[in-house]
Amino acid sequence: MEKLHSLYYFLELAGCFAFAISGAVAARQRGLDLFGIAALAFTVACGGGIIRDLCIGAIPPAGLKNWQFLAVSMFATGLTVGLYPIVQRLKRPVLFFDNVGLALFAVTGAQKALAYGHNGEVAILLGITTAVGGGVLRDVLLNRVPIILEKEIYASAALIAAVIVVLGDYSNWMSSELTSLVALVTCFTLRTLALRYHWNLPSPSLK
Amino acid sequence: MEKLHSLYYFLELAGCFAFAISGAVAARQRGLDLFGIAALAFTVACGGGIIRDLCIGAIPPAGLKNWQFLAVSMFATGLTVGLYPIVQRLKRPVLFFDNVGLALFAVTGAQKALAYGHNGEVAILLGITTAVGGGVLRDVLLNRVPIILEKEIYASAALIAAVIVVLGDYSNWMSSELTSLVALVTCFTLRTLALRYHWNLPSPSLK
Amino acid sequence: MEKLHSLYYFLELAGCFAFAISGAVAARQRGLDLFGIAALAFTVACGGGIIRDLCIGAIPPAGLKNWQFLAVSMFATGLTVGLYPIVQRLKRPVLFFDNVGLALFAVTGAQKALAYGHNGEVAILLGITTAVGGGVLRDVLLNRVPIILEKEIYASAALIAAVIVVLGDYSNWMSSELTSLVALVTCFTLRTLALRYHWNLPSPSLK
Repeated sequence: MEKLHSLYYFLELAGCFAFAISGAVAARQRGLDLFGIAALAFTVACGGGIIRDLCIGAIPPAGLKNWQFLAVSMFATGLTVGLYPIVQRLKRPVLFFDNVGLALFAVTGAQKALAYGHNGEVAILLGITTAVGGGVLRDVLLNRVPIILEKEIYASAALIAAVIVVLGDYSNWMSSELTSLVALVTCFTLRTLALRYHWNLPSPSLK
Repeated sequence: MEKLHSLYYFLELAGCFAFAISGAVAARQRGLDLFGIAALAFTVACGGGIIRDLCIGAIPPAGLKNWQFLAVSMFATGLTVGLYPIVQRLKRPVLFFDNVGLALFAVTGAQKALAYGHNGEVAILLGITTAVGGGVLRDVLLNRVPIILEKEIYASAALIAAVIVVLGDYSNWMSSELTSLVALVTCFTLRTLALRYHWNLPSPSLK
Repeated sequence: MEKLHSLYYFLELAGCFAFAISGAVAARQRGLDLFGIAALAFTVACGGGIIRDLCIGAIPPAGLKNWQFLAVSMFATGLTVGLYPIVQRLKRPVLFFDNVGLALFAVTGAQKALAYGHNGEVAILLGITTAVGGGVLRDVLLNRVPIILEKEIYASAALIAAVIVVLGDYSNWMSSELTSLVALVTCFTLRTLALRYHWNLPSPSLK
């Protein structure tokens, strides 16, 4: 069990790193300055979790309190600013870890809401928020319609992961560890397949 | 009294429905996918109330906890996606319920802040926030200047309703029920007349 | 000491006024109506502090509770609407007080986070948030990329002020009053020099 938790912790930081890279790269492409790049990296990595913590009453939000998130964001900023060729070559691993991050943030977000004693609906809504909130803030700050609202199965994969966590918690069919593993793998697989085969949710306006 | 509360409850859900429709329709017109439409509907219906609850310490926010709001938002999404012709024909009732929602959210928002023991200023500011917060978030997410800041008497009607609630609470001239009725009717009437006769607040830059 | 506190209080309201003017002027230039101008003025003056208070658990946020902030914002709105020529002639003092406000908000933001028992990282991040949050919200509402992320040494000056406050608190080298004075002067001087000599942070994308 101890090992599983260490693994989760490593994966969470890796997901955080992937999110931070996505923020830093987008900021660099828009011509923001050094501070702007760092701020965007941190916002994408921690924004969703901070909103979740405000909503469940976890004060101060973990993203502001734990130096690891800030350190990972600054590392991503440094890479994006100083070693952009490397970041460009990291494109595939970054996509991989972005999917890992999405799955993990959805699962841990829902679990944290449950752990604070809130009901399943809160857990599902905040699981999604944790997973996609940072990306939405990034797009709002960069003045564009959040990409996750427009295309690709992204937030929907987070939704499914959060639902699995909540169902597992209610039904007690599986141990909490097994549930979160199933949720993680489902979300990650769905998202990876969606990327590979260009699965989209229907966009009714195009009918 | 019991009946009045049931009536309020029905009206609140009706207002919530009108707000959700406005979010879903705007999202559909911008070409968002299914998830995006549902997310916008929910955001407009519950966003203002969630911000209010964070500010008064009502954790978790009611919009995340009570399934009715989510259900109404999903119903509005379903209608907008599946039966768009009906939604278009609903234009007049939707405007009607949007005005009802505005009035009700301003009144209940201010009342909830007072009930949590905060002062009149907090109640007025959060009454407005409850009423217009969702619409502001919708416009920010859709990448446009919030329409309520640009034209028509909308937020100002909410302001007046919230002020009436607070004055009533301080003065004890009328029962709380009567005060909220006066506030509701004032806000609703003002908004309806403003729509009909194209009343706008002055826009100083056009002088 | 008493006098120093009165001075700080005066300066805080002056900074608040400068921030409100910047919001009101930007709103007027974008053609918002009276309510929109007042809302923007208040948002720039109080937005950063409200986010900080939500994150440290100061409920309700001071910006909503203390009438002085609202009064100063409404005064700035009145000036911008009724006496625009005066506001234009105030350009220099407004820039001056904007720099004062930046420095003061960074210092008092970090101090308030420490006073609520949070760690240095929280204090630094929320010191910056207090100082620049209002301006970021202004730009998001007016549908443009936040200017502070793009150019000029602005948020970085706030960062340095917040770091000085936290270092002073940890090291006990100086009294808290002296520390905040040093932080204030450093931030204000840095920002004023940056404005005068057009210092910018490097913008990596332009390499």
